[in-house]
Amino acid sequence: MLRKYKKVNDVHGIEFREKYIPEVSKPTYVILGLPDAGLVGGISTEFLITNSQFKEFAQAYSESHLPPISHISSGIAKSPLSLYHKDNIIVVHSWAAIPSGSLQPVASALVEYLSKFSPALIVSITGLPVQNRLDLEKPTPYWIANNESLGEEVEKTGLMKRFEEGYIAGPYAPILLESARKGLWNLVIVVESFLDLPDPEAAAVALDTLGKYIGIQVDTSSLLKEAEEVRAKIKGLMEQTRREMPGYTSVKPSTYA
Amino acid sequence: MLRKYKKVNDVHGIEFREKYIPEVSKPTYVILGLPDAGLVGGISTEFLITNSQFKEFAQAYSESHLPPISHISSGIAKSPLSLYHKDNIIVVHSWAAIPSGSLQPVASALVEYLSKFSPALIVSITGLPVQNRLDLEKPTPYWIANNESLGEEVEKTGLMKRFEEGYIAGPYAPILLESARKGLWNLVIVVESFLDLPDPEAAAVALDTLGKYIGIQVDTSSLLKEAEEVRAKIKGLMEQTRREMPGYTSVKPSTYA
Amino acid sequence: MLRKYKKVNDVHGIEFREKYIPEVSKPTYVILGLPDAGLVGGISTEFLITNSQFKEFAQAYSESHLPPISHISSGIAKSPLSLYHKDNIIVVHSWAAIPSGSLQPVASALVEYLSKFSPALIVSITGLPVQNRLDLEKPTPYWIANNESLGEEVEKTGLMKRFEEGYIAGPYAPILLESARKGLWNLVIVVESFLDLPDPEAAAVALDTLGKYIGIQVDTSSLLKEAEEVRAKIKGLMEQTRREMPGYTSVKPSTYA
Amino acid sequence: MLRKYKKVNDVHGIEFREKYIPEVSKPTYVILGLPDAGLVGGISTEFLITNSQFKEFAQAYSESHLPPISHISSGIAKSPLSLYHKDNIIVVHSWAAIPSGSLQPVASALVEYLSKFSPALIVSITGLPVQNRLDLEKPTPYWIANNESLGEEVEKTGLMKRFEEGYIAGPYAPILLESARKGLWNLVIVVESFLDLPDPEAAAVALDTLGKYIGIQVDTSSLLKEAEEVRAKIKGLMEQTRREMPGYTSVKPSTYA
Amino acid sequence: MLRKYKKVNDVHGIEFREKYIPEVSKPTYVILGLPDAGLVGGISTEFLITNSQFKEFAQAYSESHLPPISHISSGIAKSPLSLYHKDNIIVVHSWAAIPSGSLQPVASALVEYLSKFSPALIVSITGLPVQNRLDLEKPTPYWIANNESLGEEVEKTGLMKRFEEGYIAGPYAPILLESARKGLWNLVIVVESFLDLPDPEAAAVALDTLGKYIGIQVDTSSLLKEAEEVRAKIKGLMEQTRREMPGYTSVKPSTYA
Repeated sequence: MLRKYKKVNDVHGIEFREKYIPEVSKPTYVILGLPDAGLVGGISTEFLITNSQFKEFAQAYSESHLPPISHISSGIAKSPLSLYHKDNIIVVHSWAAIPSGSLQPVASALVEYLSKFSPALIVSITGLPVQNRLDLEKPTPYWIANNESLGEEVEKTGLMKRFEEGYIAGPYAPILLESARKGLWNLVIVVESFLDLPDPEAAAVALDTLGKYIGIQVDTSSLLKEAEEVRAKIKGLMEQTRREMPGYTSVKPSTYA
Repeated sequence: MLRKYKKVNDVHGIEFREKYIPEVSKPTYVILGLPDAGLVGGISTEFLITNSQFKEFAQAYSESHLPPISHISSGIAKSPLSLYHKDNIIVVHSWAAIPSGSLQPVASALVEYLSKFSPALIVSITGLPVQNRLDLEKPTPYWIANNESLGEEVEKTGLMKRFEEGYIAGPYAPILLESARKGLWNLVIVVESFLDLPDPEAAAVALDTLGKYIGIQVDTSSLLKEAEEVRAKIKGLMEQTRREMPGYTSVKPSTYA
Repeated sequence: MLRKYKKVNDVHGIEFREKYIPEVSKPTYVILGLPDAGLVGGISTEFLITNSQFKEFAQAYSESHLPPISHISSGIAKSPLSLYHKDNIIVVHSWAAIPSGSLQPVASALVEYLSKFSPALIVSITGLPVQNRLDLEKPTPYWIANNESLGEEVEKTGLMKRFEEGYIAGPYAPILLESARKGLWNLVIVVESFLDLPDPEAAAVALDTLGKYIGIQVDTSSLLKEAEEVRAKIKGLMEQTRREMPGYTSVKPSTYA
Repeated sequence: MLRKYKKVNDVHGIEFREKYIPEVSKPTYVILGLPDAGLVGGISTEFLITNSQFKEFAQAYSESHLPPISHISSGIAKSPLSLYHKDNIIVVHSWAAIPSGSLQPVASALVEYLSKFSPALIVSITGLPVQNRLDLEKPTPYWIANNESLGEEVEKTGLMKRFEEGYIAGPYAPILLESARKGLWNLVIVVESFLDLPDPEAAAVALDTLGKYIGIQVDTSSLLKEAEEVRAKIKGLMEQTRREMPGYTSVKPSTYA
Repeated sequence: MLRKYKKVNDVHGIEFREKYIPEVSKPTYVILGLPDAGLVGGISTEFLITNSQFKEFAQAYSESHLPPISHISSGIAKSPLSLYHKDNIIVVHSWAAIPSGSLQPVASALVEYLSKFSPALIVSITGLPVQNRLDLEKPTPYWIANNESLGEEVEKTGLMKRFEEGYIAGPYAPILLESARKGLWNLVIVVESFLDLPDPEAAAVALDTLGKYIGIQVDTSSLLKEAEEVRAKIKGLMEQTRREMPGYTSVKPSTYA
């Protein structure tokens, strides 16, 4: 028997089909991993869902805003954009880069859908491409917040540096503004990274920082050990993401900081 | 006298004009052959309909989603996308590659139209481009399913290997998701193949595998004998398909497996 | 005094403005000459209307589907797409290539407009580009029909060869399907021709064949005598047509037969 | 105090804002100067409005159909498309080339707006690019009319040659057809000219011919004396026009005559 | 706690979200700094808001008309298009170039939103690219006005030269016409500048001229002292602006004066 998805929401041309509506404990955190510079976000959330037994509860479908690509895992085809949960955490993970022309509607739909879980915080994870990435022993994490109160809170922890002045372009930019519009707190953890090489080390830094900030245990040692395999596995996704990134960055990465 | 088609369905801007509504016995199987890597699907379904006396019962028309091309057979012009039937099998065959911007609406329309026959299974046939195709004595077939139960069933037969991890892009990707949405089972038989050379040998493997799986007899020996003629005949279709394929694969074929 | 056109039909964004509604005797034949490979159709219909005293009765106008070009004849500007009649024949002639993105709506509009004359047959004239055109003493005419009964009728006459297997792309392809949809018979006379050189000899073969098939007298000797002048005169139209043709043929002409 | 324009007409997405509605005596002539080959029309109408004390009475505005460009004259910014009048003459002059995708709606809007002045004749002025322009002592003027009666009338005067056979593409082509549709007479004065060099001499010929035809006195001697200054002044407009012209001429200028 | 923005206006697909509605004293002046040639406007308004303690009161949001970019300042993400006020002055500053296809709707929305403050004058600041910029000791400011009365008033002050004849393209062009349409006065201060190098010296001249004209004190000495730092800081914005500028100027900058 095929377990049918229940159609829950059709927002901005994007459907969120739920197997079930998860009970997520409080305070609820949402972690976003969307393909982007260095695939830092995508590697982080894939590591979380596969190593910490997250359960998939919904998939996003869209005729107009998601690419005609199916993600296949153990022979089973799925939407590239899926939602997972465990305890008080919801993970949104995409196995394909969002087309640059669809960043705004996908952001609006995601924020609207997620708002029904009344999250205490939405955390986006991304990379900050730096030229001297190879010379860095450990990439530095920065924070961007969509409001001053959140900024102050993060600054007090001393876990990340403040991203002083600059721009953020790509899938996380409209999510920052859309969540502000809805009164939701959105933190972006930005870790120094490669631009178009998958960067598991940067993902490990992001996960360590995230774990300390929201108070969960993440053992990233296996992520570092298997860095080479991770890189090989997601080479294809890196290629597709590279093709979409020029559309993300009307402002070039060199202008980030 | 001209036998007029009866207009039956106008779904997502695509009309299915039926000469008659066929009585298809149970369990009903649908076989899809859409131009794609190596034309594996198209060669398979063309071989079926011409060698096993399938009867055409409907053609698809669309001002906006199908290319301005007529397929000509024995002097008679037809829509490039036609439906055939015999016993308990429906074949959907396209003589032209679906434009990459129309993959989603064509998938939605096909699945919605086919659902009225309550098929037990929709089988898509496609190629998996591999670099060492020339060195393979016999290309290997893999399976992709749109739900776990189907996956288990196929896995038990041992006829195909499981497609472990990766992506599928192109015309079959949205069909996997759309049929899941409608609660229909969809199996993709993926056979190792050339990328842009027509591959009758891969089609023969697909048909053999399909025949064993759904319990029908297909003698593919003539397909192998006339491989060269088949290749020559569909050179033009391969060219048109090659032009559409970059739009199919935002993710390159090398990332398939 | 300016003779105003009466607006008769606005179909799919195309207006047919009629000076008058002609009385056309039965059986009514429609001849279509739209710029295409070798301009075979356009040369044929221009020859007909100028040498056989056809009378213009309507012009097609469209803000969105016809190019911003006026055809000028003896100082008077007209729509590039005009309709003419004489006895039992209606000629549709275009002095400009239909933009490739407008093939479908123009086909739908033409067929719908023409259906009110209840034509016994719509005849399209086109070229079949062949590499060895220069070596052919007399190019061969082929037929394509949009239904089997018409095909049998034409085949019996022995005037043209059957176009066995292949594709037709460009302005005549959607007309074949649209007329089938409306229950109208559509015959395409396809004559071997140059691809992007105007080919009056091929047009002469088309007209001879057409004349014998529908029982009218066409003296094409002057067309052959003045072949060079015809070529010079329509060089500009050939250039514009050449620009639109790649959009016509997603399938290359080499795949025709 | 800022004199506000009164919004009079919003036709096809184009607004005609009038300072006042001019009383134009009969018979009313409209002269159109739109940037085009050799800028013959634009130079002619600019010369008329600045040397014969024409008064501006309206400007055209459009969010979608006019380029985001302001014309500046003595420090004051205006729409690039303005209307002027004097005695029985209305001049429509554009300081920017109409984008090729907007030719049809601009033509429709202009003709509809102008029709309320019940003009006896609309005169368009344009260039006919000829290769041997440099060798011509005096470029020849030709006429194109949108109906036979006007053609006969012009032919009798012997002021211009008849434009025998060919095409006209660009801003004046849809105006010919639109005015015919509304029952308005439209004459195009076509003067041999350069293609992408401003051609004041051709403009002088156009104005002389126009003056004789509609019975007004135009002293073009200063236009010829200051030809070099005129050329320098409108170099920028020539550049923008050159960028739009390929979109005008799906049919190349060499096919004009 | 996150201070939510109140949604005030949704004009032409652009939302102006206000923290509060500021009380602005009379006469109210609006200063516009949008990225453009030499970033003269953007440098000027950034200097004003950061050195004269302007307060942000609103941000503009748009799914379709603003780029998917967030501006980050001290870690906090904001819309790139924000509004500030102090005393009788409102500043509109953009941290990203407006996409060329969105100039018209952004202009319409801005003018409509600003009109509710009944401004006595809207001042746009921009650069006039000149080839010999390096040789100029002090770049010259010019004025453009959207009506004669304003032009006369400015001319009397002797602060700027009149921009005699030419074109203005880019973000300020539709604002000139839109404000005229609404009966609002709009002055453009145009200062000779580099084309694609940030030009703080030109911005200083613009601010000095503006200060004298509207009677406010602006000390631009620090702007000149830190010219190099300013240039480095906005290198990224200059790059994005350079990418949009060809779309702004269908007419090349050389045609400005």
